[in-house]
Amino acid sequence: MANSRKGRHLTQMKITAIDPFYLRMPDITTAADGTQDTLLVRVETDTGLEGWGECDASPLVSLAVYCCPMSHGNIINIRTSLMGETLDAPDDVLRLSEKVLRNGLDIQQIQHAYSGAEIALWDIVGQQLGKPVYRLLAEMSGSSDVAHRKLPYASVLFGDTPEATYQIASGLREQGYRAAKFGWGPMGKFGEANDIALVAAAREGMGSEAQIMVDAGVVWGNDPETAYRRAEAFAQFSPTWLEEPLAPDAIDAYRALTQKHPSVPIAAGEGSNTYRTAEDLIVHGGVQFVQIDTGRIGGIMPSFEVRQLAEQHGIQYVNHTFKSHLSLAAALHVFATNPDFDLLEYPAAGSELSQRLVKDPFRVDPDGMVRVNDLPGLGVQVDTDAIRDYLAPVRIEVGTDTIFAVQDF
Amino acid sequence: MANSRKGRHLTQMKITAIDPFYLRMPDITTAADGTQDTLLVRVETDTGLEGWGECDASPLVSLAVYCCPMSHGNIINIRTSLMGETLDAPDDVLRLSEKVLRNGLDIQQIQHAYSGAEIALWDIVGQQLGKPVYRLLAEMSGSSDVAHRKLPYASVLFGDTPEATYQIASGLREQGYRAAKFGWGPMGKFGEANDIALVAAAREGMGSEAQIMVDAGVVWGNDPETAYRRAEAFAQFSPTWLEEPLAPDAIDAYRALTQKHPSVPIAAGEGSNTYRTAEDLIVHGGVQFVQIDTGRIGGIMPSFEVRQLAEQHGIQYVNHTFKSHLSLAAALHVFATNPDFDLLEYPAAGSELSQRLVKDPFRVDPDGMVRVNDLPGLGVQVDTDAIRDYLAPVRIEVGTDTIFAVQDF
Repeated sequence: MANSRKGRHLTQMKITAIDPFYLRMPDITTAADGTQDTLLVRVETDTGLEGWGECDASPLVSLAVYCCPMSHGNIINIRTSLMGETLDAPDDVLRLSEKVLRNGLDIQQIQHAYSGAEIALWDIVGQQLGKPVYRLLAEMSGSSDVAHRKLPYASVLFGDTPEATYQIASGLREQGYRAAKFGWGPMGKFGEANDIALVAAAREGMGSEAQIMVDAGVVWGNDPETAYRRAEAFAQFSPTWLEEPLAPDAIDAYRALTQKHPSVPIAAGEGSNTYRTAEDLIVHGGVQFVQIDTGRIGGIMPSFEVRQLAEQHGIQYVNHTFKSHLSLAAALHVFATNPDFDLLEYPAAGSELSQRLVKDPFRVDPDGMVRVNDLPGLGVQVDTDAIRDYLAPVRIEVGTDTIFAVQDF
Repeated sequence: MANSRKGRHLTQMKITAIDPFYLRMPDITTAADGTQDTLLVRVETDTGLEGWGECDASPLVSLAVYCCPMSHGNIINIRTSLMGETLDAPDDVLRLSEKVLRNGLDIQQIQHAYSGAEIALWDIVGQQLGKPVYRLLAEMSGSSDVAHRKLPYASVLFGDTPEATYQIASGLREQGYRAAKFGWGPMGKFGEANDIALVAAAREGMGSEAQIMVDAGVVWGNDPETAYRRAEAFAQFSPTWLEEPLAPDAIDAYRALTQKHPSVPIAAGEGSNTYRTAEDLIVHGGVQFVQIDTGRIGGIMPSFEVRQLAEQHGIQYVNHTFKSHLSLAAALHVFATNPDFDLLEYPAAGSELSQRLVKDPFRVDPDGMVRVNDLPGLGVQVDTDAIRDYLAPVRIEVGTDTIFAVQDF
């Protein structure tokens, strides 16, 4: 704290630009593949530093939160809240987050949109102080600053059939993955026998030594009975968890399900748009794995607070990441220092856009594990040249004003 | 049900257009006055009917939810979800709401944005069936279909000083108001003595017979101790409630406050963007008045569900309305049939835009009460001629496409 105060005094770095960028693949399908488009946010300072963050959200809706005209004191856009502000230390990030959220009190999309900027602010502060973000978080919370390796699980969609799923699983196994999550697609849509055949195929393809996870993609909505029966039916294939069997806000249904103590642990949380939503799911829903998307919940700090809550409750924190490795970096810093939280969602079949987005993607090391980069800030670099072709120009006019116009980085 | 099925068979009305309109006053200030701008949504059918709804939300951000390009199967805009759909009966509204929310699973702003369309759908179905919306809700829930009058409380902001507040209160009393809520502005910002003086002035100006309410405008954030001390200090002036002393999602702080059983009942809920948020506040926060904005929570049906939850918990449901009388109509239908829920937030000092928005605003009857209009649908008509000057043209281009362009109604 003394250091950061001193640093602030010396530098007084100011935010000079906040720019959201909408990128997308040429063709977008209804598949539950979150890498088909994205919203990046770049923050720049008067000292020449720049930070980047990525949102997992509708790019246009979130972009509007950066430029929407003021409606009153509770609807003020993110750019207005951040422009010209001082940014030198972690305390500044917390102060600015409080300001942004207070000014956006009546903007429902505020957390989805702000996530990208919050991550970029941490990236800048880490660069400024010469420390990786996970160390800043450790200093702040007084916890260990030793980063631990994670076991990446390939995160893929089910094939349309059990056979197609088997092929996908076999392919992942050949690539060396020791864990894989299969989700969405046909799961829950063609009856119990097909659901079981899908999971059986995933297990067969991955082999008996691997970890497999099943992501039901909210398909049983508000129906804990069916979710419980499926959990019991899937238990023979020993999945690590059954994920999102129910709708994100069906907390009572989650409680009904978890109180039956199904043979397969229940995971959920990617729909947490606020810290409270995640807390509600943990405290009242009783999930055993909480999966947080740093690009949705408002960034790194609220994710870190959910991690701390998971530690208090003796459940496991896992990242939800279905974007580029910029998101993966942000996600990793949040829980790198807890060795018990040893699983990492690792997008393994993302779009070209998502694969080209950073210059230095996280590789799976020879031991099959992934490690956070021990570099200042997030430790990854956005490759604007490689992704320029995916940038969608956006122009928004309200009344006689052009309130947003972006052509290039 | 038999009737609605029959009706559906006969008419098969289809939705042909869904249009959001951004309206605003020439000058927007930071005052907590939600009537400075608005987003209206018009839905049209192939039988020539049109319905209207109003959102209490950032107009631009919500408008983007009507036209945002698809990101994947969980980010599909509202227009796409509704266009061409059948709409004949209340069941259709529920079916379409489920579709819109499912298609917008990963759009955080979905409830704020959809509220306007949902209200418009009820307006159309009511017109089609020749019944006011409150009767459709009564038939659906099997409860009484008798509408009851409500005591309107003028909803105004505190003056900048106790003296200015006294003047405002005296003016309301002269206009015949028997209840008034004072909120935001200086409350909580200049110490306890000033807070008390503000409430004293409101009481003095309104007289000893009137009901007064105090809206603290989330000013004590996460601090239940200060909120409790203020509630005790205000008790001498007998306010009906102390509203939003804490941040909307500070549920644990609400519980800490309400478990101390302050001498003034606690009200909150306008920040409920989903049914679950309201449920969380009631069940875990322990509030005694739950205040729901039909223009935020996703429309009439989720509001009605919160009303039912309030009935089950023995607490009082109140509307939150700080927009035009189009919003007031939607709010009234939700709880018109419960005589115990007898208070109505009644915007009394709104902008010209909000005052001119409907042709037939709700008047305070000679007995000092307000009644729902016993007309088909919402029972109010939008005056497009009167508000045309406030319409802000909006144009949004993404890539080479113009995805939204509105110049006129």
